[in-house]
Amino acid sequence: MAEYKAPLTDMNFLLYQVFNADKMWQQLPQLSEQVDQETAIAILQECAKIAEQEIAPIARQGDEIGVSFSLNSEGVGGQVKTAPGYKEAFNTFAQGGWCALGGDINYGGMGMPKIVSAFVEEMLCSADISFALYPILTAGAALSLAKHGSEELKERYLTRLYSGEWSASMCLTESHAGSDLGIIKTKALPQAGGSYEITGSKIFITGGEHDLTENIIHLVLAKLPDAPDGPRGISLFLVPKIIVAENGNLGKKNKVSCGSIEHKMGINASATCVMNFDGAQGFLVGELNKGLACMFTMMNFERIGVGIQGMAAAERSYQNALEYAKDRRQGKALNKSSSELSSKPDSIMVHGDVRRMLLSMKAFNEGSRALSCYIAKQLDYATYGTGELQKKGETLSTLMTPLAKAFFTDLGFESTVAGQQVLGGHGYIREWGQEQLVRDARIAQIYEGTNGIQAMDLLMRKVVGSKGTMIKIFIEEVRDYIKAQQGNMVTANAMGEFIEPLENALKDLDDVSSLLLTKSQDDLNEIGAAANDYLHVFGYTAMAFIWAKMAQVSLEQLNGLTNSDDELNEYGEDFYQSKLHTARYYFARLLPRRLSLLATIKSGSHTLFTIEDNLF
Amino acid sequence: MAEYKAPLTDMNFLLYQVFNADKMWQQLPQLSEQVDQETAIAILQECAKIAEQEIAPIARQGDEIGVSFSLNSEGVGGQVKTAPGYKEAFNTFAQGGWCALGGDINYGGMGMPKIVSAFVEEMLCSADISFALYPILTAGAALSLAKHGSEELKERYLTRLYSGEWSASMCLTESHAGSDLGIIKTKALPQAGGSYEITGSKIFITGGEHDLTENIIHLVLAKLPDAPDGPRGISLFLVPKIIVAENGNLGKKNKVSCGSIEHKMGINASATCVMNFDGAQGFLVGELNKGLACMFTMMNFERIGVGIQGMAAAERSYQNALEYAKDRRQGKALNKSSSELSSKPDSIMVHGDVRRMLLSMKAFNEGSRALSCYIAKQLDYATYGTGELQKKGETLSTLMTPLAKAFFTDLGFESTVAGQQVLGGHGYIREWGQEQLVRDARIAQIYEGTNGIQAMDLLMRKVVGSKGTMIKIFIEEVRDYIKAQQGNMVTANAMGEFIEPLENALKDLDDVSSLLLTKSQDDLNEIGAAANDYLHVFGYTAMAFIWAKMAQVSLEQLNGLTNSDDELNEYGEDFYQSKLHTARYYFARLLPRRLSLLATIKSGSHTLFTIEDNLF
Repeated sequence: MAEYKAPLTDMNFLLYQVFNADKMWQQLPQLSEQVDQETAIAILQECAKIAEQEIAPIARQGDEIGVSFSLNSEGVGGQVKTAPGYKEAFNTFAQGGWCALGGDINYGGMGMPKIVSAFVEEMLCSADISFALYPILTAGAALSLAKHGSEELKERYLTRLYSGEWSASMCLTESHAGSDLGIIKTKALPQAGGSYEITGSKIFITGGEHDLTENIIHLVLAKLPDAPDGPRGISLFLVPKIIVAENGNLGKKNKVSCGSIEHKMGINASATCVMNFDGAQGFLVGELNKGLACMFTMMNFERIGVGIQGMAAAERSYQNALEYAKDRRQGKALNKSSSELSSKPDSIMVHGDVRRMLLSMKAFNEGSRALSCYIAKQLDYATYGTGELQKKGETLSTLMTPLAKAFFTDLGFESTVAGQQVLGGHGYIREWGQEQLVRDARIAQIYEGTNGIQAMDLLMRKVVGSKGTMIKIFIEEVRDYIKAQQGNMVTANAMGEFIEPLENALKDLDDVSSLLLTKSQDDLNEIGAAANDYLHVFGYTAMAFIWAKMAQVSLEQLNGLTNSDDELNEYGEDFYQSKLHTARYYFARLLPRRLSLLATIKSGSHTLFTIEDNLF
Repeated sequence: MAEYKAPLTDMNFLLYQVFNADKMWQQLPQLSEQVDQETAIAILQECAKIAEQEIAPIARQGDEIGVSFSLNSEGVGGQVKTAPGYKEAFNTFAQGGWCALGGDINYGGMGMPKIVSAFVEEMLCSADISFALYPILTAGAALSLAKHGSEELKERYLTRLYSGEWSASMCLTESHAGSDLGIIKTKALPQAGGSYEITGSKIFITGGEHDLTENIIHLVLAKLPDAPDGPRGISLFLVPKIIVAENGNLGKKNKVSCGSIEHKMGINASATCVMNFDGAQGFLVGELNKGLACMFTMMNFERIGVGIQGMAAAERSYQNALEYAKDRRQGKALNKSSSELSSKPDSIMVHGDVRRMLLSMKAFNEGSRALSCYIAKQLDYATYGTGELQKKGETLSTLMTPLAKAFFTDLGFESTVAGQQVLGGHGYIREWGQEQLVRDARIAQIYEGTNGIQAMDLLMRKVVGSKGTMIKIFIEEVRDYIKAQQGNMVTANAMGEFIEPLENALKDLDDVSSLLLTKSQDDLNEIGAAANDYLHVFGYTAMAFIWAKMAQVSLEQLNGLTNSDDELNEYGEDFYQSKLHTARYYFARLLPRRLSLLATIKSGSHTLFTIEDNLF
């Protein structure tokens, strides 16, 4: 397996040449104090080191050995032991201050914007998704706490989550309630003194129990006895594994225990726990019955992160596949004249189908990274901006969060499968590491809301729910970009090969959005039938926009249009040529996927819904 | 996990209502003595029982425990122990005579045609691919031996392979030589007495060592010292694990040993072995330097079987997903008025995206089963027919073998992933069994020639290699069918919805075939670039043909056009309505996939080949 190399050049290209993150930071007072180009570059470099040197090396063993569960001596619940090396790696990680990266500066956080932390998440996940989940879920819970927790809760818990002394879990799912959280049964009884007694059982709790930190802070969805039915009766509670005294010292164990862990297809070094709350002491986070809203604060951040997990695994798979393909000799190039044919086989890089798989992976990975950067930027505007900037950032990040989650994980899984295929039989053997990436990437299409749920969130709640206004804002943005490029006398000619198909794709996205808005007035099943395909049409079109932008910047750099002595502009000609070639590949061979999807959407919902259930 | 139910009704529908297997058998003297409708029905029923009751129950444990390897006491090589239950199941299987199913009747075989044995393979693989591989590889090796082995070899070995006393392996791959067998290094030295001394090391040998049978017969590709370079210097040898005396008694151990076994993504109960030959005694099979041809005899049969493995896993996944979807309640139907909304969630069958996943699986599984039946029929004509029938069967089965292998395994893998997705988080948990099907199905896209190799076999060797004559024969067959349907006064109206898009798809297949033939004259890289997409265009079109046929038969049955008191015609209205609905779903929502593929092919090869390797 190739050693993981963090794609720092690509990240810096995106930050400073494509999305002008430095200008954004200067624009936003809340950010300009925390981050500048120098800081961000240093953060990413340091993260690359830890990901490459500390985390990537433990991933294979983590998969083989996994987490183990043993019952406590008292027989209630049990302990989870992480795989060899995880505790050491986590300590190094925490001591480096990484748990504070995106945290609230008032409680010891570093206040880094998403546009930086998204890249940190990518590197951690490329190194080892299992490891990365512990700090990523902690950061997600901390975000919710920072936004909705009382001052007291924040002072007592946030600081210790940021320091990495403690970690956190998010306890949503119950065995009968996954996508449908409105029907959860976990109860919260108000107690004297303002706390609550939490009773219920949660499943699929990532990092619910482990030995990496001395305390684990659970954020738990539960209902008061008199709460309204459905999602409007859900509240959010903070339930520590070990009770924390007023002075911050750890006290006795709370009545929460890990009942068992799941044996899974992948992410074997991540503890997926059944968590039992038996009258555990909990503290309300945010307002009563507003628990889902508190969770969704975190979810937008999380869901983009989950999308990035898919791409991160695919990036690792690509690096492995490329190394293998260059090294492996099998068969001969087709276009050699017979005099050139020696008895020695060529590297499999000569085969069209191997190039197809590698280039598809490359185009999807770089496209997903760029698009995630674009969405992260919108999220940063939404979080730190004001006025129109904030409003537009809010709209675009809200609209594109389900896209990021589902589209990047679908492409990411496809790419890990392609990367496995490049290795042939070796791709199926565990010791080569490629198949682990397939298994690890697969979960990202399922958790944090299945990709089917994401598609409905996008089309039903956002596109239809806003009567088309949200998608129009994206379409207008791309339309403006197209106009600007067509009017650009210097690059318009060279950009024609990208702008023309982008314009076609955008028109089709606009048309199909209108079509579905109209259909939704008669029959909502049309939305359920179209959602998945619509999400992908949107995804391929948005990725075309982002590839056009990358091509444009590359053309400008190659043409010396942007002369600068900044070393960032000196990635060298190969870097930009590679971008241009990959953009061409994307437009020629990947963007056409939207054609089939459009045809399928237009076929309507009747073939899905007229067949009776007993005929399946 | 749902209990596996073999799809016997669908199989009989295909055999007797769609493909008129009974008429074929009567037509072919070699078959009419072995098989008739009654025999075939009994065979499939008995196979269903053994698959459902003996094999399916051992699959989960087989995955968890897998095969284990321990060194022999003398330190040379080692022993492989199969998972609990495998030996008992294999004994039951062998004692039932199943190892003889497709075997040569002159040596104790039952001489069943592929159109029957393909369904047997499907049921075995739905139950447990790991188990099925032991008899399936044995049958493949036996086929090669029956066709190319000397009388002596056949009498000594074939009979014992058919009885299930012994099993077989096929030893092709070496660590540096997988797809490219021309560069193998295993040597064969001629010995006095006519045998050979075989020396070399083979990897990825399925069933190379195990404890199911008292002897294992290896078919080994090797080269004589003076053999020509490349594939034309390869010979095939039979190398028994234990030397067989002239009287058939087992003698001393041959110099062949299992060096280790692989730890894999899936098919964990199938032993994948490194086999070391250290001057082992071997016997030539067929002519010297014609070893590859001898192997390819078996490969056409095998590759269709590997295609069926993909579909078989997908069938199992569909059954599980359907049971789960009907049982699982989560969320509400979109199109209910608010008065109908109770607090109780609906079954997830109400959600469009769940229906999409299930119907895609159903359409692909039934379509693949039908298309595999069509190809098996052609193979039977090729094997047992004469004159024009034989010639056409030969052409179509040769053309469509790579299609079957790659298309069915790609769709099969996609379907197992979809079936996993239907189960949400539970799909990722090992004990639910769905994720095992994903892991088990994955190998079928890789082994027996990767799907990329299959695509090149189809487009380069067959379509281009025959200057288009082979694909024309398929196209003419479909064109004739379309004409016949258009001229059918009774069903033409009802069939219009299928015939029209089929005609379009066929025209596009014809055009793109011609386009690629033309392009191939200038630049063979165009073929390498297009091969994978072309294979899928062909696949979706061929599947449309087969779905149209199934729809037509269903319409005829529903209209009472084929009145018969045969109980086979009385599957009931639901069966035919289900077929019709699924056909409509296929044409509306799956056949359009070809549009993107056509666009990609037409984009040409330059985006794949103009990018230098160092820019990846």
